Amino acid sequence: VQAGSPILHGYFRSSCSWRVRIAFALKGVEYDQLPVNLIKDGGQQLTEEYKALNPMQQVPAVEIDGTTLSQSLAVIQYIDETRPGPRLLPADPKARAQVRMISDLIASGIQPLQNLYVIQKIGAEKMQWSQHFIDRGFQALEPILKQTAGKYCVGDEISMADICLVPQVYNAERFKVDVGKYPTIKRLNEALLEIEAFQVSHPSRQPDTPDDLRA
Amino acid sequence: VQAGSPILHGYFRSSCSWRVRIAFALKGVEYDQLPVNLIKDGGQQLTEEYKALNPMQQVPAVEIDGTTLSQSLAVIQYIDETRPGPRLLPADPKARAQVRMISDLIASGIQPLQNLYVIQKIGAEKMQWSQHFIDRGFQALEPILKQTAGKYCVGDEISMADICLVPQVYNAERFKVDVGKYPTIKRLNEALLEIEAFQVSHPSRQPDTPDDLRA
Repeated sequence: VQAGSPILHGYFRSSCSWRVRIAFALKGVEYDQLPVNLIKDGGQQLTEEYKALNPMQQVPAVEIDGTTLSQSLAVIQYIDETRPGPRLLPADPKARAQVRMISDLIASGIQPLQNLYVIQKIGAEKMQWSQHFIDRGFQALEPILKQTAGKYCVGDEISMADICLVPQVYNAERFKVDVGKYPTIKRLNEALLEIEAFQVSHPSRQPDTPDDLRA
Repeated sequence: VQAGSPILHGYFRSSCSWRVRIAFALKGVEYDQLPVNLIKDGGQQLTEEYKALNPMQQVPAVEIDGTTLSQSLAVIQYIDETRPGPRLLPADPKARAQVRMISDLIASGIQPLQNLYVIQKIGAEKMQWSQHFIDRGFQALEPILKQTAGKYCVGDEISMADICLVPQVYNAERFKVDVGKYPTIKRLNEALLEIEAFQVSHPSRQPDTPDDLRA
């Protein structure tokens, strides 16, 4: 990786970090990874050093083009707007709106309710709590995707919506949600996992993946 | 309002509905409102009729240009990309990324944790829970805004970040968070509340505002 390449501060199993890794892979952008272990030492995201990069003390944070960005969808759209390669949002405004609607349903409507910091506060009920909010989100997402999907979430081109979907399905499986109840979500996830950008960015293949979880 | 105008299905006090009202007002777009009372009859967003508009059973949902969109930031960016008037996202990619980062910090990092459906599940602790997550978000937002803000959240032009900030401060006040602890947030909120688009869209001035809360 060359000097001046973007640096991703992330965690192998963080779904929001995985989103950014997929975007870099789809665009063919080389980048460095500096792992932030969310569990070790009580959570390396809580250090003062990391807080200066992302005051929310969450991953990812991305150093790119002389600035530091957090919030994965902001990062992905910045990559899309500044790098060549396949579009991550379609050109048509209505299709763009559908991509953003699906992305935000996941990024605002599901993921925040099952992220590590929140379920640490929930305590003993955290498995049920997470399942509840993932199921609730997927029940809404399934009929929307039935209308918008072709080969992928919106039509036949890969977009930011797909980038959000696959890591959320991975989380659902971790929390033992029966994804088979959502046939469109299941089909799209399987199709996307065939694609190299989703494979190389997978949590099982990162520099900080523990040996027992490595593919 | 003319035939073919957008229809906003919203609720006077919903911060996500308010975001969309501000965007319409800034752009000078006329629209109809069809109120969805989140409290009455156990919550009108839970009807089958409304579920067909927004399967997440949340407000807002917007009927526009022959399609129905939900997720406020997707709606706002669609309005921005299809209507004349002042830009709601700046032209420069880095500034756009900052606007989206701030918007997402609020829309994914704060609001989902204090929305009605979630705090109904939290029960008796809901005031403390909401205060905790709003304070946590504002502690992160304050240093970010210190770096990005001019007259408004990002530089001197009003953007989607401002559209997200003001309704979140309104929520913070409802949950008795001391906004005075965050001088940049406080200053920006006060400056923005001087602007007509933020005033006409305010929860105290909507068709469904109860008389005792009306300005």
